[in-house]
Amino acid sequence: MMNSSENTNTIFQKGERAPADYFTGTVWFNNLVPADEVLNTQIGNVIFEPGARNYWHTHPGGQILIATAGVGYYQEKGKPVQILHAGDVVKISPDIVHWHGASPDSTFTHIAVNSNTQNGIVHWLDKVTDEEYLEGSA
Amino acid sequence: MMNSSENTNTIFQKGERAPADYFTGTVWFNNLVPADEVLNTQIGNVIFEPGARNYWHTHPGGQILIATAGVGYYQEKGKPVQILHAGDVVKISPDIVHWHGASPDSTFTHIAVNSNTQNGIVHWLDKVTDEEYLEGSA
Repeated sequence: MMNSSENTNTIFQKGERAPADYFTGTVWFNNLVPADEVLNTQIGNVIFEPGARNYWHTHPGGQILIATAGVGYYQEKGKPVQILHAGDVVKISPDIVHWHGASPDSTFTHIAVNSNTQNGIVHWLDKVTDEEYLEGSA
Repeated sequence: MMNSSENTNTIFQKGERAPADYFTGTVWFNNLVPADEVLNTQIGNVIFEPGARNYWHTHPGGQILIATAGVGYYQEKGKPVQILHAGDVVKISPDIVHWHGASPDSTFTHIAVNSNTQNGIVHWLDKVTDEEYLEGSA
């Protein structure tokens, strides 16, 4: 297992534990920019400990992920898992069903930019099962 | 003078030189997320070498700066210069006249998130004079 501390971008505070209702494993969320009606943008720093991930979900206004440390997974429904490293950027169009998280052996940190928040921020769906998750490491 | 390499976040490629028409000194720009009509968001990584800064300008859709390395300056017209360090976030409402850049002795890196790009991205104004710039280090 890789050393977690080497895979955590330490620019930001860890923030709060993300809710177990929508996340599997240990995830830390720092709400850097809460949504408002002027910028219509919400930005959070998210740290996924090894094996942790969020549930399947959509963003009514879309989302951009900026990977900043460690090795992560991103998957859109019906497509293969993408492996993410620091510096990778993922553009997610509105209403695309997807999930993201850490790989099994590395903490993963990304900045998440939610755009067009006047249309809503997130709709949570089903849990990502261990079977679905482990397809990424096959 | 601080070592520039210690003050540059190396997650992203440096990108291209920013145009001398709107920037003073050496500035590198990596257009991580070009604007489109779906996400309405443009994101760039910007590296200002010591003393470098942009011209006074406004964003019709607003902007969010996320400082990631080094020591920088941010100023809104008529207000004092703010000193920025890694982890600092600045929210800039639409049409606010402002500039940003490095401090005199440190490279400064930030991620710039331009929101509501359907309203436009940037309007450039006058150069930040040396006198205006040096007020920040007074």
